[in-house]
Amino acid sequence: MIKFPENKQSQTESKKVKFGQIPLVYPIPIVLAGALVDGKPNFEELGDVAVMGINPAIICISSGKDHHTNKGILKHETFSINFPTTEMMAVTDYCGVVSGKNIDKSVLFDAFYGELETAPMITDCPVNLECKVIKEFSIQHRQIFVAEVIQAYVNNEFVTEVDGRKKIADLTKLDPIIYALDNKYYKIGEPIGQGYHECGEYKKKYGPHKKE
Amino acid sequence: MIKFPENKQSQTESKKVKFGQIPLVYPIPIVLAGALVDGKPNFEELGDVAVMGINPAIICISSGKDHHTNKGILKHETFSINFPTTEMMAVTDYCGVVSGKNIDKSVLFDAFYGELETAPMITDCPVNLECKVIKEFSIQHRQIFVAEVIQAYVNNEFVTEVDGRKKIADLTKLDPIIYALDNKYYKIGEPIGQGYHECGEYKKKYGPHKKE
Repeated sequence: MIKFPENKQSQTESKKVKFGQIPLVYPIPIVLAGALVDGKPNFEELGDVAVMGINPAIICISSGKDHHTNKGILKHETFSINFPTTEMMAVTDYCGVVSGKNIDKSVLFDAFYGELETAPMITDCPVNLECKVIKEFSIQHRQIFVAEVIQAYVNNEFVTEVDGRKKIADLTKLDPIIYALDNKYYKIGEPIGQGYHECGEYKKKYGPHKKE
Repeated sequence: MIKFPENKQSQTESKKVKFGQIPLVYPIPIVLAGALVDGKPNFEELGDVAVMGINPAIICISSGKDHHTNKGILKHETFSINFPTTEMMAVTDYCGVVSGKNIDKSVLFDAFYGELETAPMITDCPVNLECKVIKEFSIQHRQIFVAEVIQAYVNNEFVTEVDGRKKIADLTKLDPIIYALDNKYYKIGEPIGQGYHECGEYKKKYGPHKKE
């Protein structure tokens, strides 16, 4: 039973529909996770990825235990995260449909390696993260890998210099593939604001700059 | 040193710029994580959230150890994830700028509670996830909470019935706030494809429907 504060119960109760136990997080970033499996680069389409820390740079991914990619990640304790553009939607989707157990996905991409030497990265993806596993655990049929980003690579056409500092292009140029649990892919939309700078009115009203 | 296969080294080397150890995952979903702290609902703006499993429904979040919200999550082992629309950008941004230690954020939103009774959810957010912590660990200054989604709530104006089944509106209607490490907020763009259905040409060429 849903409990509501005071007399708002009926109002809220009629407003909300229960959908049960679904992990309805959105939007979902679409990436290609790369690993070296039996000596060959393999890539799987993945949405279950997130930043877990900035300093140190930590990310985590979740991948089905029986996935071919996991075999390489467990062996080398390294993997890559590659961000395709919407132009790469067909090949990205393909990497989510077929398994490296049956199909040699190494022919689909030009790959390069960084200092870890066992995390194949996709040259044509504008951004690649080279990752080293620091923690691994399982929940039912999933393996969750927490990893440190050892190096981030950006294609030079997406890099500009502003006041002598290298800057990465914004999302409208990186043109990522976005996913949601309605099983649709989406493009990114336009920028609408700046982090930590959109709350002037609230600061004025509620603090910390309240002057009453 | 970057190693490349065969003679592609110079070509790739000149194409990629190293940005060091940054967790450049994009796009980042912007949510409000809710917890009951000292008897009051508190909400923090968070981007470090992802799906970790579908069945069971598992998500994870990462939140700075000293954050006020963590206190409530650790006490009750419950929290909520609330998805604001772009119309809520100012108040969402505010929840990322000020701490519940100094500002009473319970006055900012109408909150309701589900069966866990200790995970306050924001009525005006189109989607709310009520979560129970199943695993917690720390990496340096971050606390990472892995949680099961006990119930997903969707505002009824975003729910339609198709063939007798309840369906949730797509992202263009849910209108999420999206973030990236360039510190900008973005809108979602238009749908461009359907998951697992965009790779016909690749299937034909590389299998599993190869007919050679």
